[in-house]
Amino acid sequence: MKLDHIIEAQQFNVPMIMELFNLANEMERVFLRGGTQDYHHKIMASLFYEPSTRTRLSFETAMCRLGGRIISTENAKEFSSVTSGESLEDTIRVLNEYVDVIVLRSNTVGGTKRAASVSQIPIINAGDGKGGQHPTQALLDLYTIHKEINTINGLNIAISGDLELGRTARSLTYLLGKFDRVRIFFVAPEKIQMSDDILSYLDKRNVWYTKVKNIEEILPEVDVVYQTRIDKSRIADLPDADEIIRKQFITKDHLSKMKSNAIIMHPLPRMNEISTDVDTDRRAAYFRQARNGIYIRMALLVSVLS
Amino acid sequence: MKLDHIIEAQQFNVPMIMELFNLANEMERVFLRGGTQDYHHKIMASLFYEPSTRTRLSFETAMCRLGGRIISTENAKEFSSVTSGESLEDTIRVLNEYVDVIVLRSNTVGGTKRAASVSQIPIINAGDGKGGQHPTQALLDLYTIHKEINTINGLNIAISGDLELGRTARSLTYLLGKFDRVRIFFVAPEKIQMSDDILSYLDKRNVWYTKVKNIEEILPEVDVVYQTRIDKSRIADLPDADEIIRKQFITKDHLSKMKSNAIIMHPLPRMNEISTDVDTDRRAAYFRQARNGIYIRMALLVSVLS
Amino acid sequence: MKLDHIIEAQQFNVPMIMELFNLANEMERVFLRGGTQDYHHKIMASLFYEPSTRTRLSFETAMCRLGGRIISTENAKEFSSVTSGESLEDTIRVLNEYVDVIVLRSNTVGGTKRAASVSQIPIINAGDGKGGQHPTQALLDLYTIHKEINTINGLNIAISGDLELGRTARSLTYLLGKFDRVRIFFVAPEKIQMSDDILSYLDKRNVWYTKVKNIEEILPEVDVVYQTRIDKSRIADLPDADEIIRKQFITKDHLSKMKSNAIIMHPLPRMNEISTDVDTDRRAAYFRQARNGIYIRMALLVSVLS
Repeated sequence: MKLDHIIEAQQFNVPMIMELFNLANEMERVFLRGGTQDYHHKIMASLFYEPSTRTRLSFETAMCRLGGRIISTENAKEFSSVTSGESLEDTIRVLNEYVDVIVLRSNTVGGTKRAASVSQIPIINAGDGKGGQHPTQALLDLYTIHKEINTINGLNIAISGDLELGRTARSLTYLLGKFDRVRIFFVAPEKIQMSDDILSYLDKRNVWYTKVKNIEEILPEVDVVYQTRIDKSRIADLPDADEIIRKQFITKDHLSKMKSNAIIMHPLPRMNEISTDVDTDRRAAYFRQARNGIYIRMALLVSVLS
Repeated sequence: MKLDHIIEAQQFNVPMIMELFNLANEMERVFLRGGTQDYHHKIMASLFYEPSTRTRLSFETAMCRLGGRIISTENAKEFSSVTSGESLEDTIRVLNEYVDVIVLRSNTVGGTKRAASVSQIPIINAGDGKGGQHPTQALLDLYTIHKEINTINGLNIAISGDLELGRTARSLTYLLGKFDRVRIFFVAPEKIQMSDDILSYLDKRNVWYTKVKNIEEILPEVDVVYQTRIDKSRIADLPDADEIIRKQFITKDHLSKMKSNAIIMHPLPRMNEISTDVDTDRRAAYFRQARNGIYIRMALLVSVLS
Repeated sequence: MKLDHIIEAQQFNVPMIMELFNLANEMERVFLRGGTQDYHHKIMASLFYEPSTRTRLSFETAMCRLGGRIISTENAKEFSSVTSGESLEDTIRVLNEYVDVIVLRSNTVGGTKRAASVSQIPIINAGDGKGGQHPTQALLDLYTIHKEINTINGLNIAISGDLELGRTARSLTYLLGKFDRVRIFFVAPEKIQMSDDILSYLDKRNVWYTKVKNIEEILPEVDVVYQTRIDKSRIADLPDADEIIRKQFITKDHLSKMKSNAIIMHPLPRMNEISTDVDTDRRAAYFRQARNGIYIRMALLVSVLS
């Protein structure tokens, strides 16, 4: 598999995803034997127009484990400052003369696409403005489900949190819609439930889904809880906002209601959506998920660099 | 050629420049075959007292392509903050104990010279305050002319923009003055034309030059257009400031008036001094110029490290 | 010696310190022959919740000289920002999935201890809040004394500056208390003299010490002057604050009063506690001390990584 750019979740079909997961498995073996030096002659630029230190460190770790070199800035907005005023396109063209791959965190939706349109070297989207895409997160989320449960098809998956604005929840749902017999439980207050664009996409693909207000009700049924953040200010006008939000949370008390082989995921960072006393339960998969991010990003770097 | 420090354009005579260009040609071959690991035991410190991400990434790319290691800060003003209060000299002395070469972006004119005066390891000037020197930019500009046209002697060169404050325009003019039969057209509103210190330097060396207000007039004659930025606020008090500025600009309409083997350069970042529809023309050399910056900086690093 | 975490000076006893110093000596030989590539498969994370560029660059240099790789942020407070709100513990758990060792600059006292309590990989304390520990500085200070004078036992040591708040002065005193027949002269205005907790620790260990106001009086007796910063605002309410502070300073005039084989140290950065005309004297050890920081940090990295 040779990928040109990693722009959005939509560019991946199921066979490509499966090939990527195989490559990520291989990358795990590379990682566990201490990495490789195979890419020592390749340079990755971390071009971040807003700080996203977690994502940046994940990509840079992946590149280090491949033996590659890194040049890095979280200060890229300086390029387009009032005094400098360079267009994103010009910055990308200049970096084309320097490096072999660009990991781009744009501060505007669609920035990665514009970057790719002028780039001869691969662009990887590391988050694209506030409401935009973050495809590598979606892929590592899906990879985690597949790795932990060995399949995606036929799973019951709860997705919880602020689903209206939640970038990771939206992207994961999109990818899940490509698989067979998946059943999705959207757990959120109605005010910030999953948007109609995603729901009609699911309708078109005949994916079963339902909306739920209290996560407790559906815990016995699900194989995966994908927990995300929910900001109280988003429903502050509702009476009992605290109470409503608490119905999304996972605590130790919930564990006994879950299947013994279910998993709990979270893209992190978390606030109190998952209490820390859940962490020691074997089903808590969120730190393994962070590790999987390294494998997926190694696989994506290999796919675009080779 | 063994260089101690790279402080200012003045330290280079023509034979040194030619030797440097030969080394830069060699570095291009090294770059194109994937770099070298020869300098894996060398560490470069990027010591930036003000952010200049483009310059920093260019130097760091050059060091990576040589196989060297990098420690880096764009936060160096912290060293001389009110609470810390360390002198530049002390910071340099400490870094002497750590690394093999320092790339210094000072925030005061003359900072690099002060740094070099206490340093046992090479200091490379990566921009020296607002009006100060930026010798590696001047060298890569000159290298680009030489590489594209195969000579400097006898060329007709237009230098356009805010010439009074323009650091790159001043340094390039200085270096051009060392070559034979060069003719220079300074294109700028009179208010921000090239300063007398540079003009009398040219007079002393019998270099032909003239001042021009409208770039269009001289386009058919020139081999090189060196375009730089011009900030409207600098001539805002003039009536027709917009009109005056537009006379410096290069657009697609100008291309037919230029020699077929002329080149258009720009140190970047650009605003609208060169319209983007010029980019696809073969004569647009500004992104190749950015690449040449890597070769020149690799050559300079090799010169000071070996 | 296999160390798990480097949290505080207290975890080191004299045999461990001596073993560490032997390893640091070995690291000096590694450094002088150009470093090693032995740790090319190891990644160090620089996780700085507040900028401390000097300390960060020292650790990163040490890791580079070992051949290791680095991912780095001085922007770690972003992890625990209002919008992100991640706990230090979660950040550490995530980095456990990425790298092999974490160099942590916490912004709260006790942060490193909390980090270590959830970490499977080594944590190295690179400064722990304002009044907290900075054990690698204390170890490199002690190492410098030992390397320059070949012993710690029996030495007369002046420690000067703001001793009440001075983290390095406190930690060094603590470590000195473990050695034999050390005599300590605390040079400071009474208002900011060494605190009682440290003094009673010395009393318990029968370490001889005295308090002094004027450094000049004891210069002929001491083998080591450990100079630190003193901020005038801390004694601004005293009449003659300037005069009082000046009595701590070391100038060229003092040199003739010192033993010929004494040494002058400073953790740096300095303001005017040591005048620059002292720098060229052989006894001025503070820049060698900075170099020793690399050897000690290489030794500590090797101790936790192997």
